[in-house]
Parts: sequence; structure tokens; C-alpha cells
Amino acid sequence: MDNSIKVVFPGTFDPITNGHMDIIKRADKIFDGVIVGVARNTGKTPLFSYEERLAITREAIEACRSLSGVKVYGIEGLLVDFAEEHGARVIIRGLRAVSDFEYELQMAFMNRDLNENIEIMYMMPYIKYSFLSSSIVRNVFLSGGRIEKFVPRVVIRHLEDKVKKLKGE
Amino acid sequence: MDNSIKVVFPGTFDPITNGHMDIIKRADKIFDGVIVGVARNTGKTPLFSYEERLAITREAIEACRSLSGVKVYGIEGLLVDFAEEHGARVIIRGLRAVSDFEYELQMAFMNRDLNENIEIMYMMPYIKYSFLSSSIVRNVFLSGGRIEKFVPRVVIRHLEDKVKKLKGE
Amino acid sequence: MDNSIKVVFPGTFDPITNGHMDIIKRADKIFDGVIVGVARNTGKTPLFSYEERLAITREAIEACRSLSGVKVYGIEGLLVDFAEEHGARVIIRGLRAVSDFEYELQMAFMNRDLNENIEIMYMMPYIKYSFLSSSIVRNVFLSGGRIEKFVPRVVIRHLEDKVKKLKGE
Amino acid sequence: MDNSIKVVFPGTFDPITNGHMDIIKRADKIFDGVIVGVARNTGKTPLFSYEERLAITREAIEACRSLSGVKVYGIEGLLVDFAEEHGARVIIRGLRAVSDFEYELQMAFMNRDLNENIEIMYMMPYIKYSFLSSSIVRNVFLSGGRIEKFVPRVVIRHLEDKVKKLKGE
Amino acid sequence: MDNSIKVVFPGTFDPITNGHMDIIKRADKIFDGVIVGVARNTGKTPLFSYEERLAITREAIEACRSLSGVKVYGIEGLLVDFAEEHGARVIIRGLRAVSDFEYELQMAFMNRDLNENIEIMYMMPYIKYSFLSSSIVRNVFLSGGRIEKFVPRVVIRHLEDKVKKLKGE
Amino acid sequence: MDNSIKVVFPGTFDPITNGHMDIIKRADKIFDGVIVGVARNTGKTPLFSYEERLAITREAIEACRSLSGVKVYGIEGLLVDFAEEHGARVIIRGLRAVSDFEYELQMAFMNRDLNENIEIMYMMPYIKYSFLSSSIVRNVFLSGGRIEKFVPRVVIRHLEDKVKKLKGE
Repeated sequence: MDNSIKVVFPGTFDPITNGHMDIIKRADKIFDGVIVGVARNTGKTPLFSYEERLAITREAIEACRSLSGVKVYGIEGLLVDFAEEHGARVIIRGLRAVSDFEYELQMAFMNRDLNENIEIMYMMPYIKYSFLSSSIVRNVFLSGGRIEKFVPRVVIRHLEDKVKKLKGE
Repeated sequence: MDNSIKVVFPGTFDPITNGHMDIIKRADKIFDGVIVGVARNTGKTPLFSYEERLAITREAIEACRSLSGVKVYGIEGLLVDFAEEHGARVIIRGLRAVSDFEYELQMAFMNRDLNENIEIMYMMPYIKYSFLSSSIVRNVFLSGGRIEKFVPRVVIRHLEDKVKKLKGE
Repeated sequence: MDNSIKVVFPGTFDPITNGHMDIIKRADKIFDGVIVGVARNTGKTPLFSYEERLAITREAIEACRSLSGVKVYGIEGLLVDFAEEHGARVIIRGLRAVSDFEYELQMAFMNRDLNENIEIMYMMPYIKYSFLSSSIVRNVFLSGGRIEKFVPRVVIRHLEDKVKKLKGE
Repeated sequence: MDNSIKVVFPGTFDPITNGHMDIIKRADKIFDGVIVGVARNTGKTPLFSYEERLAITREAIEACRSLSGVKVYGIEGLLVDFAEEHGARVIIRGLRAVSDFEYELQMAFMNRDLNENIEIMYMMPYIKYSFLSSSIVRNVFLSGGRIEKFVPRVVIRHLEDKVKKLKGE
Repeated sequence: MDNSIKVVFPGTFDPITNGHMDIIKRADKIFDGVIVGVARNTGKTPLFSYEERLAITREAIEACRSLSGVKVYGIEGLLVDFAEEHGARVIIRGLRAVSDFEYELQMAFMNRDLNENIEIMYMMPYIKYSFLSSSIVRNVFLSGGRIEKFVPRVVIRHLEDKVKKLKGE
Repeated sequence: MDNSIKVVFPGTFDPITNGHMDIIKRADKIFDGVIVGVARNTGKTPLFSYEERLAITREAIEACRSLSGVKVYGIEGLLVDFAEEHGARVIIRGLRAVSDFEYELQMAFMNRDLNENIEIMYMMPYIKYSFLSSSIVRNVFLSGGRIEKFVPRVVIRHLEDKVKKLKGE
């Protein structure tokens, strides 16, 4: 009998930050398998395209030796269907702030309505990442600030390339 | 002397959900007349145009026999002016979450500043609709989820048409 | 057929403030009858006893000529039962802050579970009363501040008497 | 090698509600062992003593056949020490409201500071329990309301006994 | 030795409101120099361009005789670098609502991470401005409402010009 | 002409934590004089008496050489009167969480109503202190946890004495 617990960690990852990496590492220590899901739909226009976000997230995970068992896939349909297809009973979400919390509460109730076999569990980031968000990272980078402490190394190169392209237009 | 109390229920209705319908029905039981107001301005680009939102909302109300006294009109100027023109002393708003609440508080103070004869009153949704929002409905539908439980039947057809058009472009 | 709408405005009123008075006056303009309900149970130890809170609230309402139709009664059981006994279909609550809001949301869902014929509606205070609460009034008064702008005149005398008694102990 | 995941579900349980029972059942489906921890310290004076809360919680769990593997113990020291002593790497907490959330955030950071090997994970209640809290149950019961839907059957008897004793004083 | 305290008041100012003016005046009374910083980047597409926002803000400050010592500059890079270049040790931010607060908390931690010599201090608006925001002003104006009480006089003319241009397109 | 800016940092300090110390140190770097005010009234029953809180706070400040200019006094009346008596135009408050924020907003509006010459300014704690509160420190200590990182050294001794006394009763 397979008693192992696989979990999905979904997100937009525009781009992935050290706060995301921290939650992935901690989930990986507790559970028997972590699948990172990159959502195609983002609500608003992302800085990086779906294909770019998928590739950068995969690169960041692969660059981290301790995460060799973690897989990265794109989510094209419903999150609960994605979880079920990958054999995951649990979805992991990070919780940082009250505004996160309310959105998560709505999504949790909606997802349970869509598939009541999938549970959603929330983890809080290490305190030093509690103020980090992809949008703050983008803003600091675009204003000329240093972001080495906030994102995996591979992300910086992609941000630099993206800015060159945007300026070249 | 006319002592009846008419109320306005304003919104973007992009599209109207069962949460909206629930508040309209309950307001209709308490008050002597409910006018649903569809706002032209939405802050961000809506999925449905102003004319579509007005038509779909009207269709949804007309499909509900118990709401035969409810009228649907478009709001092109200020909400307080719309209420006054329709002889309504009270504006009804739904309250679901803290973020709603703060926005409502700002709008309430602003509207009272603009016309102090109009009162705004808030109703909370039935608990099974407390997580519903037009934006969550759009996301679930666009991701392939079933939304029969969340919107009036007429809305589903319009969403399917809209998606076909968007894909045909 | 009686088509009139009676409403209940419940509270602890420890003591009643000008913020409460403002909501009572505005509800009285909209609806056909307002019943102020003073709750026996308060969660924590009140400054004024149940009997005192009932008497002071009644005195404050009676001192206000424009509120001659408003009645004041004590609530000893469930709020929804109190409303039903007084023929009120609607409970009015003031909303000032996010913390209010969350508590109200819980109580609203609980009360609807207990009696689904009673609706709860929320009104926001005039902006100049939006920071007022009975507890802030008590603190300011006990620290020697002037509270003439914050409470009905009759409340001040009762606060002075209460302080004399507390010091005399 | 033991790869099983045991979790602790701590609380005051004054008294245990169906919302708590729901989270315990769902955690029990995901993880390999659930330990319910009843906290001696409660911040404020509880309705039921520590010994009573421990006994009632145990009774409620034992009355539920599907939870035969769940254990109930008292927490007399630090929560993180309790978890470690019982071989649990994960603490489960329910999240209902923004006010919960902020308190949980503070406790999470403090607990991680005290023992960084223990993870805290959060689960949201079924929507029909999202407004339930021990304090609302106490208030409804003491006001004469029916609470059959909100608490396990064994709790009702203990509440009735407690009220008789309080009145007999 | 120069012991004077200069502060920066940064913002998008799309457009500047009387709420902003109020904080600038009060900061000007406390500190020895106030520099208003107009951010080039705004997150979303502003109604007024960067150059327009800079010009309108400057005009509004210059029209106010009591603010003769206040300077207005554009912020093109990081806020903490802007503050340092202008010899300011303190950044002043207005706080109106919970949603403001959370965003500010994230930015505060990020900015301190970027430059720990710069302090951020928060001021709350006069209560009559507590519901004012640039976005509400834009909405009310575009819906035909009167905004004389909410913005400096020079802003109204610019809003009228902007609307004519938008309609002329 | 005296152009110096004195500020008051008020609190209950039951007991003073490293989070308080951090804000005092940072305020002391910006302003020309910091007065720590220990409030007699605390709303609820404190662990330490007013005299003890005043003495412990003074001891903690005196033990910190860099804070030689900081004074500690008790606040027996209104905070705004205390500030005025000590020649302070500004009151400094720490802001950690949304619940803090709402309470502060109410107090700010009330205090401005009581004395409009006093400004209140808010500072956010270093991120590593953002979860610290006197109440969490008390709970951790009373549960047997180590608090060396969270409070000044002098506080620990007083907590140990207090616990001995409480147990000796």
C-alpha cells in the first residue's frame, strides 16, 4: 500500500523568489514528494510569459541540489484537477499577509467545492522572507536595486535579459 | 403619503453571480422596491462590455419569477445621483471580506459627502456564497471548471459565447 | 396589511455614545420603528450594570425629542428571539473597523443559522464618529479628558457618579 | 526507518466544537497520527477548568469511532516541546478569520524561534463551520440558543451541568 | 554641526489630493525640510504621465504660500537612494487603511534591507481626509461629481484638460 | 530659539521588550529627546503593577549606555497632556500588525480631537522583532521557554521574582 503524501505547490512565479524556495524546501522535508505547479493564467499581464516562468522556475529548482526530487509542471486547467492528475492529496500555499489570507480563503472554499478530496494547507515563510513578493522584487530590480538576497541566482540573469529586451523595443 | 422604501443595489456584474441574486432576493423581501444598477465604469477592463453586462443582468433577473418587481438600469454618472433619480433613499451593498469592507468604507464616506440624504446599508451573503465573486467565477470558467452552482443559468451561455469569440479572434 | 418595517438596534451600550445615537437617528429616518436592545450579557465585566445600562440608554433616547418613537428594552435571551418578539424582521448593526467586521460576520452567520427569517443590515457611522467606541470614551473619561463631544449629556452625569462610587469603595 | 508523519493539533477547547472535530478528521485522513493537545494556559479565565477541558475533549474524540487513532493530552509547557516529546514534526492550526491569522503569524514566528525543526501548517474549516468559535458557542448556549449543530453531543451535557453549577452558586 | 531633520514624502500623486497636502503641511511643521518625491514607476498605468504628475504636484505646492520651503523632485530609482541624495534620514508615509498598512509593512522591511540608515515614519490623515485617495477622486470626477473639497484648485483644471484630451481622441 | 524636537514613546511595558528598546533607540537617533511614558491604566490587569512597570522600564533604559539621554516617567492622565507637559510635539508608536493598526487609528483620531497640536508618528520594528509582544513574552516565560533574545536582561530577573511570588501565594 502506498501511504506516501505528495503535495502540490502552485503559483505564478513571476519570478520565483527565495521565499518560494524556502517553502518548497520545508515542504520537501515533511512530505514524500513536492510538485511545483506554474499557473498559465495570472489574472494580470505577467513580466515573464508562461513558457519563461515555467523554464525559470524549473532552472531554479534544478540548480538546488537538495531539491532533486521536486518536479515542475505547468497548470493549464483547474488547480484541483492538476493535483489529482499528479496523485497529490494536498495543496500547499504560502501565507504572508492579511490580503493573501482573504484571497486564499475564497480560493480554498471554491476549490473544496470543486473537489472535496483535495486539502489545502498553508505554511508561513521564514520571517526574513515575510515581506518578499515577486512584485516587490520586480519593482526593486526595475528601479536599479540589488536583489541578490531575494531571488535564486538564475533569476537575476533572466531579469537582466528581460530588461534589455524591453529597452530594446 | 408614500411611505415605501426603495433601494438601489449597484455593481459591476461581470457577470452577475448567485451571490448577487441572493442579496437581491433578500432585499426584495424587506423593501418595497429594488433597482439593480449596472455601473458603466469598472476601474479595470471588464470581460463583458457595459451593454453586455446590462443585458445579461436584466436577463438573469427576468428569468427569476419571484423578482418580477425588480428593475435593472445602467449607472452612467454618480451612484448617489442614480439613487436620487430613481427615488431610492437607500443603497444596498454586499459585504464579503475585509478588503471589500475597506473599499466600502471609503466609498461610503465619499458618497455621504456627495449627498447626505442617501444612506448605504450592507448585507452579508448566505454563507455558501461568501466566497463567490465575479472574478473567481471567471477564473474557474476559463480554467475549464463547472460553474452551474455559482451563476444563474443565463450567465453560462453568455460565458460560453464570450469564450468562443475570444478564441476566434 | 401591515407593510411597515421595524428594526432592532442591539448593543452593550456601556455607555451609549454619540456614534450610537447617530445610527439610531438615521435608522429612524429610514424605517417605520426602531427598537434599541440592551444586551444583558457583555462578554467582559462592564463598567455599568445591566440595569444601569438599560436606564442610561433609555434616558438618553428620551432626552432626544426627535426619537420619540424609539423604544428601549433589555435583551435577556437570543438576539434573534428578541427581534421576533418585537415584530422586527431586520437587525441593524454599526460597522466601524475591520475587527468589528469580522466579529459581525461570525455573528451574522450564527444568527442566520438560528433564525433565517431575520436579516442583519449594517450601517457605517458619520466619519466624525468613526473612531468612537464606548471603551475609548471610558478610557478618556477615566484619564481626566473631556467627553462632551462624544456622548449624550445624560451619560456624563452617570459617569461622574460611577467614578465617585468607585473611588468611595 | 519510520517515515510516518505525526501532527499535533493544539487548542484551548473551551469547549471543543464541530469546527475542531472537522479539522481533526481531515488531518487524520492526511497524516499518520494526530495528537490533540489541550493547553493549560488560556490567556483569560476559561468556562471549563483545565481538567474539565481535557476530559471533555477526550470524551468527544472517543465518541467518534472514525478517530480511534487520535490521542488527547494536556500541554503544560511550551507547544514546541510538547510536539517534540510526542514525536510530531508538524503542528496543525485552524484558520478562520483575519484576527486568527495575525495571532497565528506572531505565534508561528515565535515558535520557530524556539524550535526550528517544528513546522506549523494551517487548515481552513469547512465553510459551514467558518463562523464557529468556542466563545460564540458559549454565548449562544448561555443565551438559551440551541447548539446541537455546533458541538459534539457530549459537550452539550457538560455545558448543561456547568450552567446548573454556576446558577447553584 | 547640522542637526536638522529633512524628510522625504514620496508618492505617485495621480493626482495630488488634499489628504496629501494635509500630511505635507503637518510634516513641514515638525521637521526642518520636506522633499516631495514623485515616483516615475506606478505599478499600473496612471491617468497623468510622470511629467504631468511632477508638474501638477509642483504647481499645487507652489500655490500654497505656507509651504514655501517644500521642494518637489521626481524619483527615478530607488526611494532609499533618493532620500540619501537629498540628505533625508526619514521617509514619511501616510496610513489610511489596513490595505495600505500591509503594503507599507512589506515596503518598510524591503527598504530597510536596502539601506538601514533610512527610517520610515507614518502619519495618519485628518479624519475628514481618511477616505480620500487619488483613485476615488479620479472615479468621482470621471462620473461627473464635484471634487472641489478633495483636491487643490490647480488639480481640477488639469483633470478637466485631461478629460477633454481623452474624449478628443 | 529652540528648534529641537522632543518625542514621547508611551506604552504599558508589561514588561518592556527588545522590540520596544529597538524603537526607542531608533527614535533617539532621529530626534533630540525621547521620553518613555509608562501608562498607569492598562485596560486589563497587568502582570506587573504600575510602580513595577515604571521601575523595570527605567532600569532597562539605564542599563543601556547609548540611551543616556532618554527619560522615563509615568502617565497618570491623558497621553496628550503628558506630551504637552514634557514639551513634546510628537508621540511615537510602534506598528506591528493590522490589529495594532486599527486600535492606533481610533486612538489617533481621538487624541487629535483632544489636542490638535500633538502629532502621532508610527515606526515599524526591525523584522526580527515584528512578532514580539509583551503578552507573547509573558506566555513563553510562564510556559518555561527561554526569553533571553526577546527582553533586556533586567527584565528576566524581575519575571523570575514575580513567578516566585505568584507561586508562593
